[in-house]
Amino acid sequence: MKKLINTPETVLAESLDGFAAAHADIVTLAEDRKFVRRAKLTPGKVALVSGGGSGHEPLHAGFVGYGMLDAACPGQVFTSPTPDQMLAAAQAVDGGAGILFIVKNYEGDTMNFDMAAEMAGGEVMTVLTNDDVAVESSTYTTGRRGVAGTLIVEKIVGAAAENNVDLAGLKALGDRVNSRTRSMGVALTSCTVPEAGAPTFQISDDEMEMGVGIHGEPGRRRVKLASADAIANEMVAAITDDLADKGDALLLVNGFGGTPLMELYLMYNSARADLEKRGFKVQRSLVGNYVTSLEMAGCSITVSLMDEETLGLWDAPVHTPAFRMNM
Amino acid sequence: MKKLINTPETVLAESLDGFAAAHADIVTLAEDRKFVRRAKLTPGKVALVSGGGSGHEPLHAGFVGYGMLDAACPGQVFTSPTPDQMLAAAQAVDGGAGILFIVKNYEGDTMNFDMAAEMAGGEVMTVLTNDDVAVESSTYTTGRRGVAGTLIVEKIVGAAAENNVDLAGLKALGDRVNSRTRSMGVALTSCTVPEAGAPTFQISDDEMEMGVGIHGEPGRRRVKLASADAIANEMVAAITDDLADKGDALLLVNGFGGTPLMELYLMYNSARADLEKRGFKVQRSLVGNYVTSLEMAGCSITVSLMDEETLGLWDAPVHTPAFRMNM
Repeated sequence: MKKLINTPETVLAESLDGFAAAHADIVTLAEDRKFVRRAKLTPGKVALVSGGGSGHEPLHAGFVGYGMLDAACPGQVFTSPTPDQMLAAAQAVDGGAGILFIVKNYEGDTMNFDMAAEMAGGEVMTVLTNDDVAVESSTYTTGRRGVAGTLIVEKIVGAAAENNVDLAGLKALGDRVNSRTRSMGVALTSCTVPEAGAPTFQISDDEMEMGVGIHGEPGRRRVKLASADAIANEMVAAITDDLADKGDALLLVNGFGGTPLMELYLMYNSARADLEKRGFKVQRSLVGNYVTSLEMAGCSITVSLMDEETLGLWDAPVHTPAFRMNM
Repeated sequence: MKKLINTPETVLAESLDGFAAAHADIVTLAEDRKFVRRAKLTPGKVALVSGGGSGHEPLHAGFVGYGMLDAACPGQVFTSPTPDQMLAAAQAVDGGAGILFIVKNYEGDTMNFDMAAEMAGGEVMTVLTNDDVAVESSTYTTGRRGVAGTLIVEKIVGAAAENNVDLAGLKALGDRVNSRTRSMGVALTSCTVPEAGAPTFQISDDEMEMGVGIHGEPGRRRVKLASADAIANEMVAAITDDLADKGDALLLVNGFGGTPLMELYLMYNSARADLEKRGFKVQRSLVGNYVTSLEMAGCSITVSLMDEETLGLWDAPVHTPAFRMNM
């Protein structure tokens, strides 16, 4: 295992301390590192809380700040945070207008966020993201996995929350964005969880995992490495076949951590051409490492159908450590 | 070679096309893909032009836009752009107040930018960056290599250019920032140039290259992998021993492309503590993949001494594909 770490046991704590120090103008790290929250809260606004296993940075803590999340709970690498963390986060950022949990569909996360919602007692609603079209149910999931589309839900719902939309309205908006968002990933290499010390899966030098999950879960099939165009085509076909509609879209090409930006833009180029052939109009774009799997090589493609309202919310100001626009 | 590409020969062209399409609101790709320039130029402003071999994305094209560069010339991977590209870029963005070339110290780049400056005839000055303390002279360099500190020069000089500082003033500012900026890198793995098809260098599973260059050039020594604290300590010591001064500083922890953000923040945490012990005060921070070496695992640490003027210019609005602040 080649990593820039001190000990596997202290990776998360030291990384969070660095993150909080680097972005002290935007975020605060809570006691016992239970959660990351905005340094400055807005009373009277619905509070957005997310979280999940670490190793997907910048998701979620990198999206805490004006226009997106109010707090994020980091679990150990690829491990759900605890209900205790979620409850503490919800209580710390509660502005009196209710709490919206945004949760990726993994069994540990959904169970723990449900428990935290019960413990919180007050007004809590949950948006569950499940944008991954690759497989139905998986190693850690019943139903579809929540992957990079989660970022789009967090951005759009976060913008609406700044506009003082109420809890039920945000829940409905989040569900609508999720229902119009689809993703699929491909891995060229595995990743290594520090505490495991060995690659999560084995893959040959000429193979790729088509439809991989963001923890290295199996996808649809293990096949020979193909051209970028062929890979993008298979992913775009799977995504668009699954969408009920076509039209204005946001195209996100998300790196898993080990693939150079140069290749991500090349994949974007291919995916965009393919999408436009299928009758989609790419109105907004995002290319980079946003929902990663440690140092896994590969990427995911996400297509989200947009309308006037969601385009406006996507363009609204956001100021977080990992995502800044228009402010 | 596991890469998301179609053919090694078309990687750059397809990647640039994707980049230009994704960021059409900010940049325009010139004919024959000679350069990337701002979509909207500012007449009367000194034009900042940079460039270099590709494979370091987002450097340089990702830094074209308000508050930073006016144009960037992409060479083939790890290969200097041609004087013809630089001349075309300079002519396209010339706003009548002169051209400032910002050039990393590599023989191909300096030779070609010098030739372009001569061909341009008009008022052209050059800031040469050489912030890498690792070695004196290297595979492609006489003197010190220009590495991640180049981003800091581009940001600060870019902000001053928006304030209508004249060409000589920007040249002096750029030289001053470069003279107060030092970097050093470490590699855990090699990278593979698409056209070469094989890793640039071989390295064992338990070794690292301390002081590596951003093309995989040899550093100071090949040693056994050490703890993040020990690595950060060696790099910070090399950097600070070479700086004539201490005080307010900007700390940049830059990923080379294959190292997860989690580890970069951990390295930041370690480097920051070390710097503060040595009497530096970290006033600004940047952590992420900014000056990469394709998919190389590893990172560099850069320390830049700041004063009231440069802090203000660092904080000034910038709006580029890869770097946005305060607008």
